[in-house]
Amino acid sequence: MRVLVAGGAGFIGSNLVDVLLAHGHTVACIDDFYLGTRENIQAFGENTSFHFYQEDICNEARLLDIMKAEQPDCVLHLAANSDIQASAQDPAVEYAHTYATTFHLLQAMRTCGVKRFFFASTSAVYGDKKGELLSETTPNLAPVSYYGAAKLGSEALISAYAYMNDMHALVFRFPNVIGPNLTHGVVHDFVQKLRKNPHELEILGDGRQTKPYLYVRDLVEAIVAYLDVPQGVTLYNIGVGTATSVTRIADIICEEMGLTDVAYRYTGGAGGWKGDVPRFQYDLRKIHATGWHAKHTSDEAVRLAARWMVEKARKAAER
Amino acid sequence: MRVLVAGGAGFIGSNLVDVLLAHGHTVACIDDFYLGTRENIQAFGENTSFHFYQEDICNEARLLDIMKAEQPDCVLHLAANSDIQASAQDPAVEYAHTYATTFHLLQAMRTCGVKRFFFASTSAVYGDKKGELLSETTPNLAPVSYYGAAKLGSEALISAYAYMNDMHALVFRFPNVIGPNLTHGVVHDFVQKLRKNPHELEILGDGRQTKPYLYVRDLVEAIVAYLDVPQGVTLYNIGVGTATSVTRIADIICEEMGLTDVAYRYTGGAGGWKGDVPRFQYDLRKIHATGWHAKHTSDEAVRLAARWMVEKARKAAER
Repeated sequence: MRVLVAGGAGFIGSNLVDVLLAHGHTVACIDDFYLGTRENIQAFGENTSFHFYQEDICNEARLLDIMKAEQPDCVLHLAANSDIQASAQDPAVEYAHTYATTFHLLQAMRTCGVKRFFFASTSAVYGDKKGELLSETTPNLAPVSYYGAAKLGSEALISAYAYMNDMHALVFRFPNVIGPNLTHGVVHDFVQKLRKNPHELEILGDGRQTKPYLYVRDLVEAIVAYLDVPQGVTLYNIGVGTATSVTRIADIICEEMGLTDVAYRYTGGAGGWKGDVPRFQYDLRKIHATGWHAKHTSDEAVRLAARWMVEKARKAAER
Repeated sequence: MRVLVAGGAGFIGSNLVDVLLAHGHTVACIDDFYLGTRENIQAFGENTSFHFYQEDICNEARLLDIMKAEQPDCVLHLAANSDIQASAQDPAVEYAHTYATTFHLLQAMRTCGVKRFFFASTSAVYGDKKGELLSETTPNLAPVSYYGAAKLGSEALISAYAYMNDMHALVFRFPNVIGPNLTHGVVHDFVQKLRKNPHELEILGDGRQTKPYLYVRDLVEAIVAYLDVPQGVTLYNIGVGTATSVTRIADIICEEMGLTDVAYRYTGGAGGWKGDVPRFQYDLRKIHATGWHAKHTSDEAVRLAARWMVEKARKAAER
């Protein structure tokens, strides 16, 4: 299959491209390096099935040129701002990078007659449901972050475009995802902080915020396996049944870094920052009923992500 | 109270401005005459409590100037494309006029510290639920029109902005609304068609599409009465418990125009056009529990709207 991956140089996007190429697909990738990096796609450079375009997806004319040249069977949309803390300061970031990218991709697909779409949505569309088990049929979606709002708005667009243009859309609502190529978030931040100061670690909130962390390879393999959906929108919560507290994350990272006697300093409060959802758990019965289960637990995912970061730092120090 | 009405020269907006002025509020109005008209606001011209700005809401700098100059206590957002058939041909219309207007208003409010907001949402956010009674807690909102998608995306934005900036937002999901200053839709179209040819009327679909039509004055009086909401988003379906079929609309209009023996020619099919929802009915228990009920039935609303259009045509012919 010929596919186009928007945001393919990003954290999840680059892991997805890797699996798509391994499955023998021809992959065109658009990325403007807003969050993605050259480093993330370096390994694909020699592969003739990989075409890279450094381009802003909101450049309508260029996107149309690329879509016409590549004639993809499927567009996979992983381009977004994914740093919720950053956009809390500047909501326009989500408008431009998360919502507008979806709009322009769907418009180009509509023009070129591309019928298959994958969208990376998020648990943030639900808002803060105070620990309620979140299923695909949970009512009253009420995002508390600009990120969640832009993703829910994108889901709404996909619903209308799929109906009006007979598209086949797969939407996964991601939980926290971690693993190789991670660029931000709590695991990334803790490793960075502990490399600067291995004696003390500042932890936002009270450390009891508990979330499921899905290993990125489990996620991207599921995307590739589930792409063949009927006309309309097929929506799944995807995740892992286990969860990890922020303090447990700190413990695992300290273990992986070989650090003992690190003093944890908590800033206090329930959430890390305004717009953060301190606690959530998915009802995963819909995707589990199809036979899919995450291969790694949340704690294992944290450990593998920490190990990758430590290893990367070690290699960088050797150079 | 000082209020700013976005889209105040439009059909519903101009009726709202009228009631706001009658209640003694100071009203600033922004409209770019995309769908609104000078005629709709002509009557307010002498009123010193009415300030008009002909401006595109998406002009960020100008919007900020206006918001700073007017310092409204409340922003009422009635600016949108409301012609679903038109945007079915060009979805970018909804992106620019329905979604982006919401984003820019919320951004300007965030900058200026304006805390109160009213948003005109729509039954189209639900999608086609095949006659299911639609309540505020109906899950799986799945718009089938670009219009519904842009409105649902706007609701998502309001949720996040309200949370992040301690705003108080009232959201009404409108049904079909008719009455004075109507500019399009089935009542408008039938009157226009019958003025051209009083012997035959083409009716899209099979004429059995049945929808509740709310009289615009009932709606705008409810908006003004319900503006004082707590922090967060307060959402209501608003409507009328009765409904009117398309064939019944034709009958009422013929009566109001004094026409007999009009041959109806049906184009056939369940819906008028792709993205049209042929049949829907609201669960209105939430707003009814507050004591509000529509004063006019759906049939009465159709009759009053038809009467206004016929009268307008008569006056125009006299000039």
